[in-house]
Amino acid sequence: MKIGSDGPEMGSGPIHVAMHRAKGNDMRIEILCTGDEILTGKTINTNYSHMAQRLGEAGLEVGWGTTVGDDRASLLTSFRQAAARADAVIVNGGLGPTVDDLSQEMAAEAAGVTLVLHEPWLARMEAFYARRNRPMPVNNRKQAMLPENAEFLDNPIGTACGFAVTIEGTRFYFTPGVPREMRRMLDEQVLPRLLAKAGLQSVTRLKRFHSFGIGESRADEMLAGIEAFAPGGGVKLGFQAHYPELETKLAVRGAVPSELDRKLAPMETEIRRRLGNFIIAEDDQSLESVVLDALRARDGSLAVAETFTGGIIASRLLQVEGAEDLFRRGLVSRNPDQLAAAVGTTVGSFSPEGARAVASALQVQSGATHALAVVVTMDTGAAGIEAGGAISIGLADLEGTIVREAWLAGGREWVRLGAAEMGLDCLRRRLLGLPTDERLDFERR
Amino acid sequence: MKIGSDGPEMGSGPIHVAMHRAKGNDMRIEILCTGDEILTGKTINTNYSHMAQRLGEAGLEVGWGTTVGDDRASLLTSFRQAAARADAVIVNGGLGPTVDDLSQEMAAEAAGVTLVLHEPWLARMEAFYARRNRPMPVNNRKQAMLPENAEFLDNPIGTACGFAVTIEGTRFYFTPGVPREMRRMLDEQVLPRLLAKAGLQSVTRLKRFHSFGIGESRADEMLAGIEAFAPGGGVKLGFQAHYPELETKLAVRGAVPSELDRKLAPMETEIRRRLGNFIIAEDDQSLESVVLDALRARDGSLAVAETFTGGIIASRLLQVEGAEDLFRRGLVSRNPDQLAAAVGTTVGSFSPEGARAVASALQVQSGATHALAVVVTMDTGAAGIEAGGAISIGLADLEGTIVREAWLAGGREWVRLGAAEMGLDCLRRRLLGLPTDERLDFERR
Repeated sequence: MKIGSDGPEMGSGPIHVAMHRAKGNDMRIEILCTGDEILTGKTINTNYSHMAQRLGEAGLEVGWGTTVGDDRASLLTSFRQAAARADAVIVNGGLGPTVDDLSQEMAAEAAGVTLVLHEPWLARMEAFYARRNRPMPVNNRKQAMLPENAEFLDNPIGTACGFAVTIEGTRFYFTPGVPREMRRMLDEQVLPRLLAKAGLQSVTRLKRFHSFGIGESRADEMLAGIEAFAPGGGVKLGFQAHYPELETKLAVRGAVPSELDRKLAPMETEIRRRLGNFIIAEDDQSLESVVLDALRARDGSLAVAETFTGGIIASRLLQVEGAEDLFRRGLVSRNPDQLAAAVGTTVGSFSPEGARAVASALQVQSGATHALAVVVTMDTGAAGIEAGGAISIGLADLEGTIVREAWLAGGREWVRLGAAEMGLDCLRRRLLGLPTDERLDFERR
Repeated sequence: MKIGSDGPEMGSGPIHVAMHRAKGNDMRIEILCTGDEILTGKTINTNYSHMAQRLGEAGLEVGWGTTVGDDRASLLTSFRQAAARADAVIVNGGLGPTVDDLSQEMAAEAAGVTLVLHEPWLARMEAFYARRNRPMPVNNRKQAMLPENAEFLDNPIGTACGFAVTIEGTRFYFTPGVPREMRRMLDEQVLPRLLAKAGLQSVTRLKRFHSFGIGESRADEMLAGIEAFAPGGGVKLGFQAHYPELETKLAVRGAVPSELDRKLAPMETEIRRRLGNFIIAEDDQSLESVVLDALRARDGSLAVAETFTGGIIASRLLQVEGAEDLFRRGLVSRNPDQLAAAVGTTVGSFSPEGARAVASALQVQSGATHALAVVVTMDTGAAGIEAGGAISIGLADLEGTIVREAWLAGGREWVRLGAAEMGLDCLRRRLLGLPTDERLDFERR
């Protein structure tokens, strides 16, 4: 417990608790981001949010965040203030080869030590350049200068190694600013050390469910008491809304991997039971990858006609590796006559009948086993009338053609994203033999 | 000069300079972001980057950033530390109606005053709800409780008003966390006060040029010395890369609006001369809005066939209001035979000839005045070979059909975005009578 042990803070009056306390453990963690690009707002600080989230998922909580520029005085002040507030500090950035990268130098100064050459890292960098038949720029030697007695943190994918030092009794972990290098070092080097320091069991896993059609507050109600299904506890439930999808996350911690399986299995079963058909994908799957996998399993193929969604459905599907083998063609139009003419039908209207006719005709014309048509009519939202869109989804497969209708509230962009998601979800449900008419939380009327 | 006047910082050793000094003026500014959603990384802190950038554009610099949660002790500590470091502090968040919104309460405590009801704001909120025929929730009354003697900062679009108070000699500006409310209050209320406080002339404007085909470092070279074109100075040049586009920004400050015009006009002319045909749009225009405006001016219409870009071109165009009147149809396919069949031609190949044939056939079939075809073949990047894509753009209009070929280095996503931009840019150049074969910085071979 360091609270109060450093005497009064700056300013008047004593501060009794200097940092928000983490639940479940006593370790106070601060994230300190450095660099003019971040400080001036030129770069959005996604490194901070990634680090804070990953720590939260592992059962650790961040209590304070600081951002300073590439400036000696600010760095030194921020290191000392963080040392006074926190038990562990993750510093991000400033490990590069240029003169404005000051993290090693200021870490050494704050720790009261000198910089010494880390021979193994210099050799690694030289070997890295030798493999590419290039001489190592002389500036890179700086990246192997670490504070005396620093603990080395490996970076297998870059020239900025990390390190840990103790400054005024607090452990500091220095990480590179390049996002992919930071992410890997955080997971492989920093998190295990923080968990050990916190006295927590050190194996963690994150299980994710992606759903469509259930809002965050209703999902929270539907999953009430779910933590009780994990034998021995240690599982944390969380949500993250990415409209129109909701991500439900289970962060689990245990001593060994088998314990994670044992805790997660009953919870996963219960979550699948409660959220049911609204779960569109799990973990690294996406709605579009699930749709394409289901199509592939049936030797199927697909054609899509979109109106208001402006090509979002085709764009989402085609970003999946291998989609080109299944995706026959996509058609985008906001003109009913053009849409009808392009698929060789005469029913040119943005209506349920139009969606049915376009899906049927497109299936025949493209030779695909499945054809999806999404048409939308916006309600402009005159005085007293909620803005939103009437969505008709036509879906033709070898068994016939169905139509799903819905009315979603919201502006153009909201309806656009919702309609695209709904079209893909109808296709998923049809392919998996699930009902296509379950009411979504977003539906009105 | 407050530096050093608060005695030694926490920890050992004196701190001689506590914050990175702003160039051009002496005011030290801190941004303090509050809220558990930001602290835990659940929400990416785009409010910080927006505020820091806007300040930078107005000639002010942010020297420190702090993030804390919805927690009384952390808020109080952060207010006091910021007061010791800075001359002006912008606090963001914590002005909502719920119990975890603590900004007013902690501001009052830090300033050593009580909270008092701001009658005019209560009346405004009641009127707001009355217009919607709803009773004001009792919790909202909390949003009209401000620290005694606080300066009111108007929020014309929300129920969270802002305010300014002085804490230990430093001026604090409290702003709402809702991004659009924060942005408006920053521009209309906070920035003018900060500029006045800094003794700077208080009219500012931001002029933006969007270009495609010139990298940031080359643009920097091409615009060397450009500041000298502004009579009397006071213009700051900056760049922001959003691949594949580059934004060139001129931030200008003056006493009156006519002075801004006078300073900007010669610089704008010179930038247009130097960047030339690579400027695709200015200010709030986008490449796609420029293309659609040029089409509209010629009573034109458009059809697009995309292969590797997966519908990005159609999606970008159709997000522009009114695009549906000009955009006849879009076709997306990754299969050469499907693509050829869909436009009624027999040349099914992803080649320059294929792009030419598809563009010509699509123009005839759709009845549009202009037809654009973008086909891409990826090079997989075997050992020693740079990964990238061969791009062929076919463009048919009433004068004939042209083909533009290019090879862009990069992975799938990089090539996808580059090819879509290049297709739209070729169309822009063709519509505006500019050469379509000017070499881009991104091109190889």
